[in-house]
Amino acid sequence: MADVKMAIGIDLGGTDIKAGLIDSNGQIHLNKKKPTDAQKGGEFVLNNLIGITSELLLTPEAKKSEILGIGVGSPGVIDPITGKVIDMSPNLPGWTGTEIKASFEKEIKLPTFADNDADVGALGEYIFGAGKGKNSLICLTLGTGVGGGYIKDGKIFHGGLGGGEFGHTTIEVNGRNCNCGGKGCLESYASANAIAEYAREVVARTHDTMMEQIAGSYDKITSKIVYDSAIKGDNVAVHVIEWSAKYLGSAISNFINILAPDIIVLGGGASALFDFMKNVIYKEMQMRVYSKSAKETPVVKASLGEEAGIVGAAALAFTSIKTG
Amino acid sequence: MADVKMAIGIDLGGTDIKAGLIDSNGQIHLNKKKPTDAQKGGEFVLNNLIGITSELLLTPEAKKSEILGIGVGSPGVIDPITGKVIDMSPNLPGWTGTEIKASFEKEIKLPTFADNDADVGALGEYIFGAGKGKNSLICLTLGTGVGGGYIKDGKIFHGGLGGGEFGHTTIEVNGRNCNCGGKGCLESYASANAIAEYAREVVARTHDTMMEQIAGSYDKITSKIVYDSAIKGDNVAVHVIEWSAKYLGSAISNFINILAPDIIVLGGGASALFDFMKNVIYKEMQMRVYSKSAKETPVVKASLGEEAGIVGAAALAFTSIKTG
Repeated sequence: MADVKMAIGIDLGGTDIKAGLIDSNGQIHLNKKKPTDAQKGGEFVLNNLIGITSELLLTPEAKKSEILGIGVGSPGVIDPITGKVIDMSPNLPGWTGTEIKASFEKEIKLPTFADNDADVGALGEYIFGAGKGKNSLICLTLGTGVGGGYIKDGKIFHGGLGGGEFGHTTIEVNGRNCNCGGKGCLESYASANAIAEYAREVVARTHDTMMEQIAGSYDKITSKIVYDSAIKGDNVAVHVIEWSAKYLGSAISNFINILAPDIIVLGGGASALFDFMKNVIYKEMQMRVYSKSAKETPVVKASLGEEAGIVGAAALAFTSIKTG
Repeated sequence: MADVKMAIGIDLGGTDIKAGLIDSNGQIHLNKKKPTDAQKGGEFVLNNLIGITSELLLTPEAKKSEILGIGVGSPGVIDPITGKVIDMSPNLPGWTGTEIKASFEKEIKLPTFADNDADVGALGEYIFGAGKGKNSLICLTLGTGVGGGYIKDGKIFHGGLGGGEFGHTTIEVNGRNCNCGGKGCLESYASANAIAEYAREVVARTHDTMMEQIAGSYDKITSKIVYDSAIKGDNVAVHVIEWSAKYLGSAISNFINILAPDIIVLGGGASALFDFMKNVIYKEMQMRVYSKSAKETPVVKASLGEEAGIVGAAALAFTSIKTG
């Protein structure tokens, strides 16, 4: 009996490292998680990644499989050819300059591929998730921030280095301040943080709402509380979500106007709000998408859930390896 | 002596048809222009295009050259593979469904390629103009409307059909009404029409400005008058241009955040205002472009001028023909 073909998928986050042994159908056979300990520096994090990979390779599950390669999703700008970290946000100090691909291939002796985590997540949804069977896809991850990736013809589409920053496109020139230093970025309207922040602003003005009761005080409202309150029928929470959806729908319209993907996939924590958002998103698309046929582009929730990162990283390995 | 290799470039506009005999260095050897007579319908326009091409082919200049093929730039959504018009704005009635490529190849017996006019203009700047030698480029045409094209690795980049509508991306969710039915589109801030309209609004409030004196009355101000007044030092005109530049700079930042091209090229009539705009554009880019290196993306004026359309169409022919 031929060995099952597997890849190792690694998802590097600011808080945790996740890694898994994943087959070519996207099934996770084994997975591990440990803290990133980002403050210990880039070299420590790299050794941590290589360590968790070595542990996975020593398991009986790995030993009875054929491991084709390793995929790594990392925050920051990653050169997809060299697998080197070009530019990094401050939550992984000392990570810029890390040679992910070269270091793995030296230590582990398996073909390794690295790319930006949002791109890798998008590839996962394309190969194994909500975009399966489509020719092109944009996946937006609505988490603490807003990430995005564009997949076309089976591959992550890279414009130049520094592209793919969908979350930092302006949708309101004089709009809300963003952490990036910009104004009116999508991220400052559609991230989980932005939703919680706007809810706190609204409740600070009105008080006496379900959200405040659940949170104890208005300044403790989280995006989870907004969601729970909306589910229970709180109009203020629904207003907050629809406010966010209007900006999200406008930004989605922009991405369609530029790239016209076959489908838009929404992942990350805030995509839990999708049921409250979708009508507003479609309404904005009707108004703002220029081409008639593209107005009907489907917008759906991601299907890979919490393990999207490692499954996407495995997809990167599978699609990058030339199985001759 | 070998014949000079030429292509025929055709630029279909709502008002005029332009066609030229262009060599592989982008030099125009001969060109013709006639009215489109768009109201006579799609079949008439097609025959008009084929007619002007036949006339060019009968000239001595054409007869002593080797004509490799024909390129056509057309408004609307064009399928780049089949050369068929998929979707068209109302200024060319009956043009949707026209089989440009098939009809030309049947009548003229030369390989023919058709694409959207803004994309074709961008390709011209990439191959022969301000983007020569770069790997990727976005060209925005600031005319009556705002068009755009993205070129990467020597080819027009097509997302899905209906993509590439850079002028109809939202930069202000609750912003100015656009002709397309949207709100806050780039086109409603950065087209020549938008600049003239905003100038009329400003002068209607303040009166007694240079622009009003030149125009005779405030409601006759054109973008040309804005430009002439700015040149002469009129602060109100400069304010109008800088207002437009702020939105244009924000939209350019968006396109860089998504695609990170090597260069941004600005063409069309309103690009004459570039000298008044560039500092504002660069300031917006410093604030809004996310990746540090991409903040320095050069923004330059197009170099092909009024004949960009036919030169770009010839570039489409040259780059599409597989010269074995």
